[in-house]
Amino acid sequence: VGASEHDGTTTVDVDALRFDEHGLIPAVVRDAGDGAVLMLAWMNRESLGRTLEEGRTVFWSRSRQELWAKGATSGHVQRVVRVDVDCDADALLVTVEQTGAACHTGARSCFHRELQP
Amino acid sequence: VGASEHDGTTTVDVDALRFDEHGLIPAVVRDAGDGAVLMLAWMNRESLGRTLEEGRTVFWSRSRQELWAKGATSGHVQRVVRVDVDCDADALLVTVEQTGAACHTGARSCFHRELQP
Repeated sequence: VGASEHDGTTTVDVDALRFDEHGLIPAVVRDAGDGAVLMLAWMNRESLGRTLEEGRTVFWSRSRQELWAKGATSGHVQRVVRVDVDCDADALLVTVEQTGAACHTGARSCFHRELQP
Repeated sequence: VGASEHDGTTTVDVDALRFDEHGLIPAVVRDAGDGAVLMLAWMNRESLGRTLEEGRTVFWSRSRQELWAKGATSGHVQRVVRVDVDCDADALLVTVEQTGAACHTGARSCFHRELQP
């Protein structure tokens, strides 16, 4: 259900996504240019709908409990190139053209610290 | 707390990680070769500890509610090159050398379906 073949690409419908008990799904954001992983954030159905409509990422802020249009204040918007779905339909991979830094610290990627082995 | 500078690289200690209410943290797995995003899975403290000790990914299976040593049955192990932590310390980026396919479907990446726009 929700998966079909179009022009050789398997596609998944939003209705097939499995949101968690909070109505959220994790979204990995990567740079369209070099594929760098920029951040992981969360979407609910509304933020995903707005992301698809507006062509810019809109997340759900779990700390503020509100929609969060990425770059609304910083200008560091993410233009959406494509959205992929994983095999379990419970995670998204959002490929974007990033304006400025993805991280609020000013770092290009939010993953800029190494875990101490 | 838990973050320090070593040889110019900021590192984060496991104790600084913020696991969710289920004791889990999402782990984005990417290929060390070309940076392709392979999958998103979950770790608890024990699976992360084993991942660091063994140098191979061990996750927590939410569906089976048990530790899941990636590749234990398929042979498709992931040798860990490094683990990075995001700015909120609530997501991991695990860089691996992947043997075989990351996805149980046989696809290289679990993100092999596009969301219908």
